Amino acid sequence: MPKINKYVDIDTVEREAKKDYIDRHSPFIHCEDNATKGEPFAVTVKMGNEYSHPDDFDHYISSISLFNGETLLAKAEFMAGALGNEKGHQTVTFNVVPTGKLNLVAHAYCTKHGVWESDPVAVAVN
Amino acid sequence: MPKINKYVDIDTVEREAKKDYIDRHSPFIHCEDNATKGEPFAVTVKMGNEYSHPDDFDHYISSISLFNGETLLAKAEFMAGALGNEKGHQTVTFNVVPTGKLNLVAHAYCTKHGVWESDPVAVAVN
Amino acid sequence: MPKINKYVDIDTVEREAKKDYIDRHSPFIHCEDNATKGEPFAVTVKMGNEYSHPDDFDHYISSISLFNGETLLAKAEFMAGALGNEKGHQTVTFNVVPTGKLNLVAHAYCTKHGVWESDPVAVAVN
Amino acid sequence: MPKINKYVDIDTVEREAKKDYIDRHSPFIHCEDNATKGEPFAVTVKMGNEYSHPDDFDHYISSISLFNGETLLAKAEFMAGALGNEKGHQTVTFNVVPTGKLNLVAHAYCTKHGVWESDPVAVAVN
Repeated sequence: MPKINKYVDIDTVEREAKKDYIDRHSPFIHCEDNATKGEPFAVTVKMGNEYSHPDDFDHYISSISLFNGETLLAKAEFMAGALGNEKGHQTVTFNVVPTGKLNLVAHAYCTKHGVWESDPVAVAVN
Repeated sequence: MPKINKYVDIDTVEREAKKDYIDRHSPFIHCEDNATKGEPFAVTVKMGNEYSHPDDFDHYISSISLFNGETLLAKAEFMAGALGNEKGHQTVTFNVVPTGKLNLVAHAYCTKHGVWESDPVAVAVN
Repeated sequence: MPKINKYVDIDTVEREAKKDYIDRHSPFIHCEDNATKGEPFAVTVKMGNEYSHPDDFDHYISSISLFNGETLLAKAEFMAGALGNEKGHQTVTFNVVPTGKLNLVAHAYCTKHGVWESDPVAVAVN
Repeated sequence: MPKINKYVDIDTVEREAKKDYIDRHSPFIHCEDNATKGEPFAVTVKMGNEYSHPDDFDHYISSISLFNGETLLAKAEFMAGALGNEKGHQTVTFNVVPTGKLNLVAHAYCTKHGVWESDPVAVAVN
């Protein structure tokens, strides 16, 4: 309490409504597999892969946080209406400078359905 | 990943250093047992009970969040140095207006030791 | 742009609607006149003195920031509904540890009416 | 108080140290001149154009906020060390969905030198 909802591969989920529920609430990390030590490395976190989330005043994605292991790197906060009050994929691109290998994980917060955690993404750093 | 560290009663912990580590990183919720529906209700979240946490630039408590069940109510962010760069108990008082019974829980973030979760506190609302 | 709206003494304002508009959007700093160096010092920031602000999903106070001169000390963020979706005075109490005299000022953000700045408050520190 | 420092064209500034000071603290908005109503529109805010800012624990860029006129759209917060504790250009890309023309402006906060405001950028929306 609060529950940290974790992404489940929706291909393993039968009910269409549940696939939609899980996918639209899950942050997905998009980045290269390899980074260069000391160079800026773009990490995009996008909500939902196949399904989009409302941007209603009483139901929206209000934040996305990016962690490296236990360490918070950056957090974005969104105001309701920033997606035009239409369904969409809230998306932010951070640029981090790695000093060693990265174990990225993202958290997102939906104002109705709480905290959601992405699958982790390991990035090799040369 | 990231791990949500949960408070453990330090009376059950033997090593002094571990008691200190757990206590100083744990948010504690202080409030009345009962609230009145529609009236402001003060909820104080204080870091540590018996042990205090550094306020160094590279090691400090940077946020405290207050949830009601899965729902975020409010969050406070602190800049390093707000406690004078001395060890202390970071503390914030929120005022929420309950519409039904509360199941409060707090999260805190230490810039070196990650996310920590308080014991939950149930508040009856009349 | 964005405009930083500053508090104006509402006794100098004639129209009732304007008094209400200014007062309910203004953060007011409540604290003692004197603080002790190295000791926690409670600073309460409360929205509105005589008039209260809505807590609607599309119109609420979403943050209060506390500065010492140019330096941010702490910031509280509030989710719509934390005041029960009723009109009220959003209020937060921070505890800062001064190392020298304080020149406190607060900013608040209303999701419909932007940024508002309090009157400054000087605190002597012994 | 707090002062909102505004960007000044550094070509009009003589002293090299002052050019550096102004440039590295100023957020610059990078985006297309035209957006399409209802479509995601990428807005990058990058600190500094010609000069880079430290990422030290006691001196770093801790947030970038993006406004449309008086309205906050989104805010990114950064932890010290996210740029590897080396000088760099803190950068974030938001994606907003416009419903009408945009008057973008960004604020950034340096933990030593306070709030800085970008030049505004007008975006036509078709």
